[in-house]
Amino acid sequence: MDRFLRQLKLDAASLEARLEEVLSLAKIKGEIYRPGQLLNSMRHGALNGGKRLRPFLVMQAGALFDANQHNLLQIATALECVHCYSLVHDDLPAMDNDDLRRGKPTVHKAFNEAMAILAGDGLLTFAFDLLSNEQAHDNAKVRITLISKLAKAAGLGGMVGGQVLDLYPESDKPGMNEITRMQAMKTGALIKFACEAGGICGGASRDELSALTSYGEAIGQAFQLADDILDVTATQSQLGKTTAKDKDQGKQTQTSILGLDAAKKMADELVTKACDSLAPFGNRADLLIQAAHFTVERTR
Amino acid sequence: MDRFLRQLKLDAASLEARLEEVLSLAKIKGEIYRPGQLLNSMRHGALNGGKRLRPFLVMQAGALFDANQHNLLQIATALECVHCYSLVHDDLPAMDNDDLRRGKPTVHKAFNEAMAILAGDGLLTFAFDLLSNEQAHDNAKVRITLISKLAKAAGLGGMVGGQVLDLYPESDKPGMNEITRMQAMKTGALIKFACEAGGICGGASRDELSALTSYGEAIGQAFQLADDILDVTATQSQLGKTTAKDKDQGKQTQTSILGLDAAKKMADELVTKACDSLAPFGNRADLLIQAAHFTVERTR
Repeated sequence: MDRFLRQLKLDAASLEARLEEVLSLAKIKGEIYRPGQLLNSMRHGALNGGKRLRPFLVMQAGALFDANQHNLLQIATALECVHCYSLVHDDLPAMDNDDLRRGKPTVHKAFNEAMAILAGDGLLTFAFDLLSNEQAHDNAKVRITLISKLAKAAGLGGMVGGQVLDLYPESDKPGMNEITRMQAMKTGALIKFACEAGGICGGASRDELSALTSYGEAIGQAFQLADDILDVTATQSQLGKTTAKDKDQGKQTQTSILGLDAAKKMADELVTKACDSLAPFGNRADLLIQAAHFTVERTR
Repeated sequence: MDRFLRQLKLDAASLEARLEEVLSLAKIKGEIYRPGQLLNSMRHGALNGGKRLRPFLVMQAGALFDANQHNLLQIATALECVHCYSLVHDDLPAMDNDDLRRGKPTVHKAFNEAMAILAGDGLLTFAFDLLSNEQAHDNAKVRITLISKLAKAAGLGGMVGGQVLDLYPESDKPGMNEITRMQAMKTGALIKFACEAGGICGGASRDELSALTSYGEAIGQAFQLADDILDVTATQSQLGKTTAKDKDQGKQTQTSILGLDAAKKMADELVTKACDSLAPFGNRADLLIQAAHFTVERTR
């Protein structure tokens, strides 16, 4: 686990350096103007710490294929912009109404609601700017594949759709299937994309890509289960955000349906499934295997 | 002008048919699930009438080069999704707080605020899905160029940045230069993109593209001037939205600085400039020339 934690930190540092660079307040060639207030609110939403798990997954899935590191970093940065935009919008008063994110004021608290909406819009749009740049890959077809997959993972059939189903479930008391589907869209799709993107950037074969897809799906589910479990078991100061929200809101989660013990067991099984998917890569996949364990270790 | 109005309607009808198709409530192959409530709010935001000027510009700029009509329609649909998302978010209570849009309730009035935020996010993301699809162009490099340009036109150095500067001007009393730059970002960038996109799709030469850029910039400015003028001179029922908002809010516009007559004169000069830019295309550009006149005719 030590090697994983070290690499997670290293990749997070690279990611943040690149975010700093692309969200620089300096004038950028070819752009009319970058309003400072907008950049500051985008930076607040994007440069706020966090584990940076998705960027790690892009970097390390790509490393399996010796993909170009600069390309991987560009893709990871685009993906993290999408993830961060979703947090900024989810925190809004009309949605989850959260004042704190990682122990700091959310964007609409630090700035205001309009700026938070626009910062989110700016980050989402910027992600596609970053991916369309040749720094993401020198082959335009590869960039198109990444853009198409990210747009689907983040869109109405993915993250945005999942957030709608989370806020407004289609049945009064959603069961396991409905919740699992909602989570697969809301958080799973972007995690799966992270794993696939590394492979796509590195020219993975169809079988290799499908192994990454299985891995991504399994850790996505495990990650969400762990989040639900933490919502029940952790304290606010441990997480740096409001806890026990689901229970307080009387909301069904996989954990509330299964019970804590069965949820933990299911999370462990998903980790095993994730690791099994990586068998074709042998011990080159050690870091990704440790990452799978990490997603649930957090709950212990 | 008759031929222009006929073509504007025809292109709007094609656009709406394509929007109907891509925002269909039916299951789409390869997607996990499309939540009906999200689609309905996206449809409310996108299928709400409107002149569809941007799609027309894509189609008719493309027609100069005999570009593939199906490709042009796909690009126009993506662009209109971006335009409509921006209207949905701009109308939100935290921004312009508008209850009416084209005489109908805005998305947050017809649904609620959270759904309006998510419908906008969904439309923006979907635009890049549509552009990454080979239906936008069979050459991946062309699709990448379109995506890159759209992301820049819609992003922090374009539309989103312009909206920030409109809501929160950087000086207490912005002058002509500041307002002109803000408008070039807020509305100009997307109109310019519409004209360029048609040319890019049709394989325009560098000189031809630069003619379209000049044309797009000029009509973008004229269009915005006309909007400001209408805000002063038209009635609410004529426009189907709240009028005299700028004056009521004590907001500086180009028209308030120049005065009504000088603003109208400037708009006319911009139309002349736009038409002159199209000289290289001869009378093949008749429809675009009529479109330039139309942007200001609305104010008479």
